[in-house]
Amino acid sequence: MTFGFDVTATTGSARTGVFQTPHGTVETPAFMPVGTLATVKALDPDELRTMHAEMILANAYHLHLRPGDEAIRTLGGLHRFMGWHGPILTDSGGFQVFSLASLNAVTEDGVTFRSHIDGSERHFTPESVMAIEVNLGADVIMQFDHVIPGQSDHAAALDASERSMRWLDRCASEFARLSADTPQQQALFPIVQGGVHATLRRDAAARIVGSGDWRGIAIGGLSVGEGKPAMYEMLEVCDAALPRDRPRYLMGVGYPEDLIEGVARGVDLFDCVAPTRMGRNGTALTSTGRLNMKNAAHRLDDRPIEAECGCATCHRFSRAYLRHLIHADEMLGPRLLSLHNVHFLIALMRRARTAIADGTFDAWSHDWLARYHSTPEHS
Amino acid sequence: MTFGFDVTATTGSARTGVFQTPHGTVETPAFMPVGTLATVKALDPDELRTMHAEMILANAYHLHLRPGDEAIRTLGGLHRFMGWHGPILTDSGGFQVFSLASLNAVTEDGVTFRSHIDGSERHFTPESVMAIEVNLGADVIMQFDHVIPGQSDHAAALDASERSMRWLDRCASEFARLSADTPQQQALFPIVQGGVHATLRRDAAARIVGSGDWRGIAIGGLSVGEGKPAMYEMLEVCDAALPRDRPRYLMGVGYPEDLIEGVARGVDLFDCVAPTRMGRNGTALTSTGRLNMKNAAHRLDDRPIEAECGCATCHRFSRAYLRHLIHADEMLGPRLLSLHNVHFLIALMRRARTAIADGTFDAWSHDWLARYHSTPEHS
Repeated sequence: MTFGFDVTATTGSARTGVFQTPHGTVETPAFMPVGTLATVKALDPDELRTMHAEMILANAYHLHLRPGDEAIRTLGGLHRFMGWHGPILTDSGGFQVFSLASLNAVTEDGVTFRSHIDGSERHFTPESVMAIEVNLGADVIMQFDHVIPGQSDHAAALDASERSMRWLDRCASEFARLSADTPQQQALFPIVQGGVHATLRRDAAARIVGSGDWRGIAIGGLSVGEGKPAMYEMLEVCDAALPRDRPRYLMGVGYPEDLIEGVARGVDLFDCVAPTRMGRNGTALTSTGRLNMKNAAHRLDDRPIEAECGCATCHRFSRAYLRHLIHADEMLGPRLLSLHNVHFLIALMRRARTAIADGTFDAWSHDWLARYHSTPEHS
Repeated sequence: MTFGFDVTATTGSARTGVFQTPHGTVETPAFMPVGTLATVKALDPDELRTMHAEMILANAYHLHLRPGDEAIRTLGGLHRFMGWHGPILTDSGGFQVFSLASLNAVTEDGVTFRSHIDGSERHFTPESVMAIEVNLGADVIMQFDHVIPGQSDHAAALDASERSMRWLDRCASEFARLSADTPQQQALFPIVQGGVHATLRRDAAARIVGSGDWRGIAIGGLSVGEGKPAMYEMLEVCDAALPRDRPRYLMGVGYPEDLIEGVARGVDLFDCVAPTRMGRNGTALTSTGRLNMKNAAHRLDDRPIEAECGCATCHRFSRAYLRHLIHADEMLGPRLLSLHNVHFLIALMRRARTAIADGTFDAWSHDWLARYHSTPEHS
C-alpha cells in the first residue's frame, strides 16, 4: 500500500494523522509550501528539509507552459528535476486557467484560453490535464475542475460544481488508463466545490465520496473573496460530509489564523503562496501579527524577527539587517523572509499537532488566535 | 600578533601563504567573494562557509549610504551585522566615488560627489573614510585613493598616484588616531597606483613600502580597461617592487584566467563581482569556458554544469533545471549560478595552492589556461 492515512489523535474535529505516499510520509495537519514553477520561490530543497517541510506543491498549468511536462518527464519526473525527493502534489491548473489566463471559452469538453506567457491559444480538458500530471509524476495529482469566484450565486455555483463532478469522472477514467502500468504511484484527489452554498457543498461531498475510493479529498474554491465566516461555515459542512479516515486538503489556504481555524474544522493539509509572497514584499509573520520589515522602527533593532522562532533567519540575523537587505533590494532579504514565513507556518502546524495529541488544542488555539489578533508590536 | 603572513611554498613568483587576521586565517592565494552591501549577492554566510570562502569584501561607500556606518557600529559592527564571523576587508569607496557617483570636484582635501541613490551631495576625505571604515570594523581596511581610467596618460596617472600617496599619509595618521584604543584589530592596506606606467608603479611601490610597516599592500587601478597584456606587465613590475613577506591584493580582479595569471605574478588575494554578476545574468563558469544557461541546448540536458565540480549546485541540479529557473525568472536560478561561480573561483585558488605546494604550478596553470581558452562546449 503506497498510499495510506492513519488518524493518530483527535480533539473535536481536529485530528493528527500520518499520510503515506510513495515518496514518504506527511504528519498532519501540515502546511505544504508552494513551488509553482518547480521551486518554492527563493528557497532551495535543503532549506525546506531543514525546516521540516514534508510535502510541497507544484503547478500543472505553469509547468506545462514552462518548461513543458514532456520535458520534465524526459528528465525523470518532477522529483528528480527539482531535487525534491519527498512527496509532491500538483495542482491541476483549474484555478490558474480561470484566474491567470485570458479565458476564451468554457465548454463541456474543456477550457480554451490564452497562455499568460505568450498569448498562445491552449485547450485543457480533463484528459489532457491528466496526461500533464502523469508526465510530471507528483505523488498526489488534482482533478481538473471548474473554478468560480467566491461570491458566485447558486445557479453559477451549481453549474460549475456539476461540471467539476462530470470532469472528475473523466479525470478518473483517463488517469486509470494512463497509470494502468504504474498503479499506486500517484493518487488522484477529487475537489469538492459549491461556492458558499451549503447544500451544494453537502451534495458534492456526498456524491464524490460515493463515486470512488479516493486516497484523499480536496475542498476547493474557498479563500477566494467569500469572507472568512462563509469559509468557516463551508468547512464545517465539509467536515460533517467527508469521511474521517481520509485526509482533507483545503486548497490555497492560507494565513496563520486560517490554518488554525481549518484544523479546528477537520482539515489536514493546507497550501498557500502567502508566506513566500509576503517574504518578497518585505513582510514577516509573527505570533503577534505581521511585521513590515521596511519600517524605520527596525533600523537599529538588533532582535530577530521573533525570539522564540527556531528558523535559520531568526537564529542568525537581526531585524535591522533584514530591513537593510529589503531597502537595498538585495536578494538575500526576500529569501530570509520567505524562509522565516514558511518555517512559521510549518512550525505552527507542528505546534497544533502537539496540542491535538495533548488534548489541549481548544485552549491553545483560543490563546494563540487571541495573541495573534492583538495589536502588532510593529506594523 | 593579530595580523601576520607566512609564505609556505613558492614556485617562481607564485607562492602559497597563510594570512592571519583577528577573525581567522586565510590560505592564499585566495579569491574573496564581494559582499558590497553586507551580503554576497544571492548567497548566505552558511553557503559561503560550506564552499570554504575564508575572507569576504564589503564596501565603505555603499554601506555609508545604506544603512549607514554609524548604524552598523551601533549594531556591533559589520561581522555581527551580516552574520559573517570570518575575516572581512572593506574597500574604501575610492573606486565607487570615481565611477558610480556623479563627481562634483576632486581637490587636495577630498572628493565632493552626489550619492548614486538619492543625489545628495557628499564629501569624502581620507579622514572621513577612515572614520567610516573604523565604524564598520572590518579586519582589513583600504586607504582612500584617487582612481583614474585604465588608459590615463602619464601626467594624469602621476597626478592621481601622487595624490593617492599623500592621502595614504593622511589615512594612516587618522587611522592611528582613531584606533589608538584598539590597536591591531584592523589593518590599513595602502594601494599602489600608477596606471599602465611602469615607472609610476615602481616609484609608488617603493615609496609606499618605505612609508610604513604595512600588513599587506594592494595593487589598484587594473582591469579597468587597460587590456590584459598591460595588466600583466604592471603585475610583474609590482611583483619585483613589493616585499615578498607581505600579502599582495589585486583589487577588483577577476576572471578565472586573470586569477591564474595573477598568481603566477605573485598575487595573493583577489576579489571581483563577476561571479555573482554572471550568476544573475545566467552565465556559469566552467573549466572549458563560460556557459550561457539560457541556451536552448540545455533544455533536456540532465548533466550538472560541470561533472567534476564539488559545489552544492552541481551536486543537486541539472543544466535543464537551471535553464528553466533562469527562463522562468525564479530567484533560485541566480542563486544557484552565483553559488557555483563563486565556488568555482574559490576551488580554482585551492587547486592553485596545491599545484604551488607540489611544485607543479607552471605545468598545471599552462594546461588549465589552454583548456579554458579552448572552444566552450556550449556557449
